[in-house]
Amino acid sequence: MSLIVQKYGGTSMGSIERIEAVAQKIAGFRARGDDVVVVVSAMSGETNRLIELANDISGSPPPREMDVLVSTGEQVAIALLAMALEKISCPARSYTGAQVRILTDDSHTKARIEEIDVHRMQADLSLGRVIIVAGFQGVDADGNITTLGRGGSDTTAVALAAALQAEECQIYTDVDGVYTTDPRVVDNAQRLERITFEEMLEMASQGSKVLQIRAVEFAGKYKVPLRVLSSFEEGPGTLITLEEGEDMEKPVVSGIAFNRDEAKLTIQGIPDTPGVAYRILGPISEANIEVDVIVQNISEDGTTALTFTVHRDEMKKAEDVLAEIAGDLQASSVVTDAHIAKVSLVGVGMRSHAGVASQMFGTLARHNINIQMITTSEIKVTVIIEEKYLELAVRALHSSFDLDAPDSVEN
Amino acid sequence: MSLIVQKYGGTSMGSIERIEAVAQKIAGFRARGDDVVVVVSAMSGETNRLIELANDISGSPPPREMDVLVSTGEQVAIALLAMALEKISCPARSYTGAQVRILTDDSHTKARIEEIDVHRMQADLSLGRVIIVAGFQGVDADGNITTLGRGGSDTTAVALAAALQAEECQIYTDVDGVYTTDPRVVDNAQRLERITFEEMLEMASQGSKVLQIRAVEFAGKYKVPLRVLSSFEEGPGTLITLEEGEDMEKPVVSGIAFNRDEAKLTIQGIPDTPGVAYRILGPISEANIEVDVIVQNISEDGTTALTFTVHRDEMKKAEDVLAEIAGDLQASSVVTDAHIAKVSLVGVGMRSHAGVASQMFGTLARHNINIQMITTSEIKVTVIIEEKYLELAVRALHSSFDLDAPDSVEN
Repeated sequence: MSLIVQKYGGTSMGSIERIEAVAQKIAGFRARGDDVVVVVSAMSGETNRLIELANDISGSPPPREMDVLVSTGEQVAIALLAMALEKISCPARSYTGAQVRILTDDSHTKARIEEIDVHRMQADLSLGRVIIVAGFQGVDADGNITTLGRGGSDTTAVALAAALQAEECQIYTDVDGVYTTDPRVVDNAQRLERITFEEMLEMASQGSKVLQIRAVEFAGKYKVPLRVLSSFEEGPGTLITLEEGEDMEKPVVSGIAFNRDEAKLTIQGIPDTPGVAYRILGPISEANIEVDVIVQNISEDGTTALTFTVHRDEMKKAEDVLAEIAGDLQASSVVTDAHIAKVSLVGVGMRSHAGVASQMFGTLARHNINIQMITTSEIKVTVIIEEKYLELAVRALHSSFDLDAPDSVEN
Repeated sequence: MSLIVQKYGGTSMGSIERIEAVAQKIAGFRARGDDVVVVVSAMSGETNRLIELANDISGSPPPREMDVLVSTGEQVAIALLAMALEKISCPARSYTGAQVRILTDDSHTKARIEEIDVHRMQADLSLGRVIIVAGFQGVDADGNITTLGRGGSDTTAVALAAALQAEECQIYTDVDGVYTTDPRVVDNAQRLERITFEEMLEMASQGSKVLQIRAVEFAGKYKVPLRVLSSFEEGPGTLITLEEGEDMEKPVVSGIAFNRDEAKLTIQGIPDTPGVAYRILGPISEANIEVDVIVQNISEDGTTALTFTVHRDEMKKAEDVLAEIAGDLQASSVVTDAHIAKVSLVGVGMRSHAGVASQMFGTLARHNINIQMITTSEIKVTVIIEEKYLELAVRALHSSFDLDAPDSVEN
């Protein structure tokens, strides 16, 4: 008998029928003798409905009241799931974040969990009850309702698993695991049996659709084994752990992440002096524009160029900021490009294997794909290429690094 | 400067526009220097929507989880109203029942308030904030969410007014006060300036549409002045108080209540012996049928007849129960009549004025309306008549007891 924390997202809770299916799944774990603590999100669409109500009233609703409002979405979901479990004779109790006492700081709409009181849950577990906790919410020291921000239900699940020392934290979603790359782009992408927390974080562009990055960080920090599985199909999913696994045949590269939401900005002919990068990226940051990749190369003529990428929707805003700075810096020009894509190879195996980057560049060269920017980290190599080559690049790399599914020859 | 508790019902909170109108009204009181504590119901339709979700899952959802579910309706409403107030620069804070700490017993879905913690509210009031409290809900000693049952928001408002020693508890609704009788039946029915708690209770059939009976009882017990007003129109409404008022010209009869939802059952030819009424009404009560009027007359031939009224929807069920008893009691027959109506004169003035009943009977006789049953209390005379005479009876009595509006002659 072991303790499992399970999290079901909004799609899994999307209708009465789906809630009943989730109840059946939970009852199955109980029947096998496991203790189960369940974290749920609001029924899909509900959080957006509530946010729209607020926006109908105010352009800037007070964050404290936003939390009172949107936390009701999960509260509805916990009650309905508890009812569905009781109906099939599986004793259950629902708890809001405040009732568990998931203590957070007072940063409304983006609170951080500080402490979780496990006594009430442990008492219920010893009575054979399934515990259903509202995800995404907590309470501050003054008793105000707080929320953890969008996707915070994953974080709630991981935090509960850590506090209760659960054997595993299972995140049920609409995909059956983490793949070597997006199966919509590469037909024979494979589900990974396991992946490390670090790799999962670097797979962000794919991973963020599956798991909240913050929850992965949290799980890594507290060493909570995390498993991503499908709510709708049977299967082992993907286990995200600290260790690299015993698999001798594990490939050097675990997966390929990509992103086509970015745009590239270059400011050219700027003086190659200390503080220049700050004078450019400081105002960008003050304008609340998030920067992803940054590359600055050495100069040859006393001037240099700095290139960075931002979300495509913010390119115009970033360009306006650069235009202002350009005069002060006597820059020669500002160049933008919205038609780029980012492709990354991810794998802890890179640490001990040389030549991953050169194999990547060679593969792209054979397909005549020009590399515009390169950045690397210990377990990731990222290139920026022209957007139209994205699918070609991902497929070529997937094949080149032996990630294709074994039966792909027959397909 | 005085402290006022205001309650806005589901219709008053029925849309974003109406919530904004409520916020304007509250801001008006603040501008005049009053401290305001507001109790709100869920937006109209919301509670029913939540109950339907539960019913889609289970025919008998656990009461504890029903409370977790339906209490979200009011939670959404308090957040939206707080946002609307903040938007017009009127500082406000929303609180759930658990946050205030409205401590109740643990009778889920029909809990009773035991204690209210006023400290947090008083601290907020001293900071100039409007306090918005979710009606209809509380928390038990173990921290479980409870609800007070349908219409419990009125009770929340009265209980808060009592705990905070408010000057007045104002119930905003879609009518502008309590009338001498239903204006849909009598054109020149008048709004009452004031009415006593006792009269309000006896006016139940009309009153229940305006105010929850339980809230009136509560207000009477704790001597909280209660005022019924319109959310949509300006006006003083009707004040419900302990005292009869100083008005010398106050009529003996304050109002006329009526009800056409009842049916009459008579069991005839039963032995006139002790315990007979119990042997009949015991099984009716066990079948969860609520009985309203009961009349038993003295016997002439050693047998008697007992007549009572029930809600029309339950007549068949009551008839089945009587059929079983009839054999045991060797009753001669069971007679039912669904086409009856109940008309009551209500007024504390009756206590000191003789002749109200005879004036009532005389008025009905002049209109050839036969009286089927009569019951009286200290401040009420009730008759059961054939349903088709209801409007005629109410209009005739309204005029006979000088309740018509002064300008009715001109109309």
